[in-house]
Amino acid sequence: MSLVVIGTVAFDAIETPFGKTDKIVGGAATYASLAASYFYDKVKIVGVVGDDFHKEDIEEIKAHGIDVEGLQIKEGEKSFFWSGKYHNDMNSRDTLITDLNVLADFDPIIPSSYQDCEYLLLGNLSPQVQKTTIERLNKRPKLIVLDTMNFWMDIALDDLLETLKLVDVLTINDAEARQLSGEYSLVKAANKILQMGPKYLIIKKGEHGALLFHENKVFSAPALPLAEVFDPTGAGDTFAGGFVGYLAKVGTVNFNNMKNAIIYGSALASFCVEKFGTEKIKNLSTDEVAQRIEQFVQLSSFTIEK
Amino acid sequence: MSLVVIGTVAFDAIETPFGKTDKIVGGAATYASLAASYFYDKVKIVGVVGDDFHKEDIEEIKAHGIDVEGLQIKEGEKSFFWSGKYHNDMNSRDTLITDLNVLADFDPIIPSSYQDCEYLLLGNLSPQVQKTTIERLNKRPKLIVLDTMNFWMDIALDDLLETLKLVDVLTINDAEARQLSGEYSLVKAANKILQMGPKYLIIKKGEHGALLFHENKVFSAPALPLAEVFDPTGAGDTFAGGFVGYLAKVGTVNFNNMKNAIIYGSALASFCVEKFGTEKIKNLSTDEVAQRIEQFVQLSSFTIEK
Repeated sequence: MSLVVIGTVAFDAIETPFGKTDKIVGGAATYASLAASYFYDKVKIVGVVGDDFHKEDIEEIKAHGIDVEGLQIKEGEKSFFWSGKYHNDMNSRDTLITDLNVLADFDPIIPSSYQDCEYLLLGNLSPQVQKTTIERLNKRPKLIVLDTMNFWMDIALDDLLETLKLVDVLTINDAEARQLSGEYSLVKAANKILQMGPKYLIIKKGEHGALLFHENKVFSAPALPLAEVFDPTGAGDTFAGGFVGYLAKVGTVNFNNMKNAIIYGSALASFCVEKFGTEKIKNLSTDEVAQRIEQFVQLSSFTIEK
Repeated sequence: MSLVVIGTVAFDAIETPFGKTDKIVGGAATYASLAASYFYDKVKIVGVVGDDFHKEDIEEIKAHGIDVEGLQIKEGEKSFFWSGKYHNDMNSRDTLITDLNVLADFDPIIPSSYQDCEYLLLGNLSPQVQKTTIERLNKRPKLIVLDTMNFWMDIALDDLLETLKLVDVLTINDAEARQLSGEYSLVKAANKILQMGPKYLIIKKGEHGALLFHENKVFSAPALPLAEVFDPTGAGDTFAGGFVGYLAKVGTVNFNNMKNAIIYGSALASFCVEKFGTEKIKNLSTDEVAQRIEQFVQLSSFTIEK
């Protein structure tokens, strides 16, 4: 039994109103697997980097108990590189550079030791690669979670729609839900998207929290109001990783556990944005996480007498 | 003991993507007093209309048990009239017409029978008129709630800052909180605004719910995800009315009761937007309200085992 995370492992260069970084370690699979590792101890990565990726950075991932057998290292090639600059409101950003490098012809190879995969997180990558990953697992995992973004809706919508038919949970943001469904109302958007394949839809609304839709049920999770969002990069990946990591830990997939999983994912994401890149979520203590969860409980609980 | 609501009583002409109305009854005090009347039976209005206001409309307000002794009727003058058009996203609108009419020189006269006021809601009006109302009450109410908008920050900021020193609760939206404080982060904005006088700050975020700030505590209330927002006019006033009406009912002002009051206010506001103007909130049953409250409980409750 394991939780397999597929996604980018990459270098990012980030500029925010608070400062800028040189190339630092990033990528959907990096953020997501780190987040998941706080709740579940059998997290395994599928991804690809070039030989420019530092051994110490891979060691840091391994130090979290994360299996990197499925992380291909391409000699003589360069790692995926993304560079972006956030606007003052931190809700929008410009992409300055996207160098696909090793990602251009990434073939996701699943080590045989990964065939015990029960929970699969398809982090942000081309829908074709996400689909191939599902097909290469001998046994369909108990739960498949897919994260994607507007970029793939723009250039690979047909592939995305094919892949969506195969998954249980889709996580996207509100703008993406509107783009994918053609509906402005998130309720109408959710109804349409739940016809496309996923049984659960999570709409991430950044500082406004997240909504979970399933059948005729809906759950609204708060976001922790923060005095400063230092760097939003990777928050969505961290959310997805914390979400599926928590579900893998409890081992039962149902609406109530999904609600809690969203709180755990949100808590991890709230740490992520406090520092540049993975700096914060690399070094969390169990106590810190537990306290943050308690903050979420305090934040949103109320009791109405009947 | 009573709940006094001061604010506009007016005609609105509204255009939304779903249709348009002729002049219909609107105004902050109308929405707020109707909402409050579902929870508390001693609601009293202070306001002013012209002789163009229909007797039947006043009777409809009275039919909710609302005292209109403080509603001045100016012979030979016209009621305040506002006309607006909502954009497709329903989050922004253009004001087409604002005819102040009777509101131009409104002097809020407090009937002696209103001097038992324990809960005072200062609905959207000039900060000067709001302040005069406080000064004309012989005894300071137990709770003073002030609702305002960006318009008054633009043209009467000094008056507003003076009035804010006298109130307990301020309700504004997120853009207004940013404008009033000069801070983008709502946490920083709240910290600054809580230095200006109010002990409690409610930031209304429309479809994203509301935040309550008090000392170092914060509560995040969800909004009910709706398939269709038919007409947002009056939702903020309805929220404020339901909020203070619930507090008047329970009779004790503390953070926990405020949290519930926000849920009750949000529930009423979720009805308000379902039809044009006051159409929906004029005709609610106790059962409908109770069911909507239960929907809010279901929407946001989760249980994390320790």
